[in-house]
Amino acid sequence: MKGAVLYGPRDVRFEERESPKIVEPADAVIRISLTCVCGSDLWPYRGISPVAEPTPMGHEYCGIVEEVGKAVKSVRPGQFVIGSFATSDNTCPNCQYGYQSSCMHREFMTRAQAPMLRVPLADGTLVATPEVPPADLIPSLLTLSDVLGTGWFAAVAADVQPGKTVVVVGDGAVGLLGVLAARQLGAERVIAMSRHPARQQLAREFGATDIVTERGADGVARIKELTKGVGADAVLECVGTQESMMQAIQATRPGGSVGYVGVPHGVELNGEDLFYTHVRLHGGPAPVRRFLPELIELVWSGKINPGKVFDLTLPAIKVLLRP
Amino acid sequence: MKGAVLYGPRDVRFEERESPKIVEPADAVIRISLTCVCGSDLWPYRGISPVAEPTPMGHEYCGIVEEVGKAVKSVRPGQFVIGSFATSDNTCPNCQYGYQSSCMHREFMTRAQAPMLRVPLADGTLVATPEVPPADLIPSLLTLSDVLGTGWFAAVAADVQPGKTVVVVGDGAVGLLGVLAARQLGAERVIAMSRHPARQQLAREFGATDIVTERGADGVARIKELTKGVGADAVLECVGTQESMMQAIQATRPGGSVGYVGVPHGVELNGEDLFYTHVRLHGGPAPVRRFLPELIELVWSGKINPGKVFDLTLPAIKVLLRP
Repeated sequence: MKGAVLYGPRDVRFEERESPKIVEPADAVIRISLTCVCGSDLWPYRGISPVAEPTPMGHEYCGIVEEVGKAVKSVRPGQFVIGSFATSDNTCPNCQYGYQSSCMHREFMTRAQAPMLRVPLADGTLVATPEVPPADLIPSLLTLSDVLGTGWFAAVAADVQPGKTVVVVGDGAVGLLGVLAARQLGAERVIAMSRHPARQQLAREFGATDIVTERGADGVARIKELTKGVGADAVLECVGTQESMMQAIQATRPGGSVGYVGVPHGVELNGEDLFYTHVRLHGGPAPVRRFLPELIELVWSGKINPGKVFDLTLPAIKVLLRP
Repeated sequence: MKGAVLYGPRDVRFEERESPKIVEPADAVIRISLTCVCGSDLWPYRGISPVAEPTPMGHEYCGIVEEVGKAVKSVRPGQFVIGSFATSDNTCPNCQYGYQSSCMHREFMTRAQAPMLRVPLADGTLVATPEVPPADLIPSLLTLSDVLGTGWFAAVAADVQPGKTVVVVGDGAVGLLGVLAARQLGAERVIAMSRHPARQQLAREFGATDIVTERGADGVARIKELTKGVGADAVLECVGTQESMMQAIQATRPGGSVGYVGVPHGVELNGEDLFYTHVRLHGGPAPVRRFLPELIELVWSGKINPGKVFDLTLPAIKVLLRP
């Protein structure tokens, strides 16, 4: 089979790779229905994160189970499944606390941009949909594997609750789906920080009530203005740069929370500055597995349509890959 | 009157100062019953924080109201009151959210090591006890002004709840009262990190179930050992150094919380490292005012005896000052 392999900055090759097989009894092999490019793929692609050796790409996936190892009990061949970008046994203490992306047996997936994929710890990583979905539902289901799961975790980590005022820093796919998540979790006001008209429009479709185009100190000043000088209850940081992190922290009211899911690149936090903000900070790689059953239900019932981030009128936001 | 003034490193003078008077209508002037030296006084005293000019000292206080300004309604002359080390109007949005130490009209108190003290925003800062307390209760009531209030906030910020496993980093007065707070809030297991026998003993009196004498990486390894490799649910950081903060973060399980109340000195947090720990971080100057009514009730009813931190057998932990 052929799969995407990153050789170095701006050097992705679609080349022949060995087809995956069951290696461990807990493995499954799935036939990928759809996969996509993640914002986090761009760090090494752009040369910001080093690439030590040719690295197979892709960690967002869904598809049909082809084969399972002897120990697998919860999924079977023929089922349509979605898995997290991080494997989990879903039984260790960290998993039981809902932090499956810190599973004691975690592996980060890296081979999903290919027709076939081996998924370790299949029982704890994959969740099957009620039936094989119609084709038009698959893009939305694919988002659960990482991008919606991550935006959702940002909202949960920021303690978004009914009636609250929420700010979303970052208008990439995660940020836009963070808007959707905040709205689903009952936020009254969702302020999206975006300067791109197409993304602003999608943010509004996903439930943004306000758009702020300013960034940095100006952006923070605008948020303060919109919140009577207080700041937001919850801020979703969906970028991972020093500027975006500071913007998020400074836009939060004392006692409010920042949920940060953009993998920090070069971010340094001064302890004393953070101390006096009174801001609560929580984030990390999203425990997607925790949210899969709930999010599958929301997509299946038509309550949310996160696949819109793949809309062809917005090709730069998130790229769909068909094997 | 005479009061303590810090001139520079290890240069505290007890010198003549003007007696305070009512300046603003919201002021009260109180006659100090007891005050004390705070751990945070030691940073400038030791020369770690600079002292730009001679600075009156003291921000922990309780005493009898002598006089109030025209606008003051909730306290009156003759009452025994306790106030926070930070003034608050208790009406602004930050106060209403329970973050009175980020009050929009906050001032940090600095003149309490003297016989008389002017307290701005008296209605929002001071809370009166049911009656003038007997002398033996006053040390415990004094702790509410900062040191117990701060240990309590550390426990609340770390989301201590019934049944949880808690670690306290720091065995100074705040850490010891953090042990007391964690226990009061229902923690099942409270692990105090301390290498001083006298402090270990007090930690046990306040409810510590385990003592860990190791520090740094060894201390973290010991906590992991005591928690089956997982880490603690809640960790109270009561020191404020890089070492103590890292020890706290690394001792926490993924999804657990660090409540940090030691004013950070030279602490820098790497965003990416923090990201992968999955730890929730919350802290800052304690909103003591939020907790005063509840803590007065606990002291008044004899349920807690935080004044033990002043025990003469432990003079180095916390110094009482009698005007």
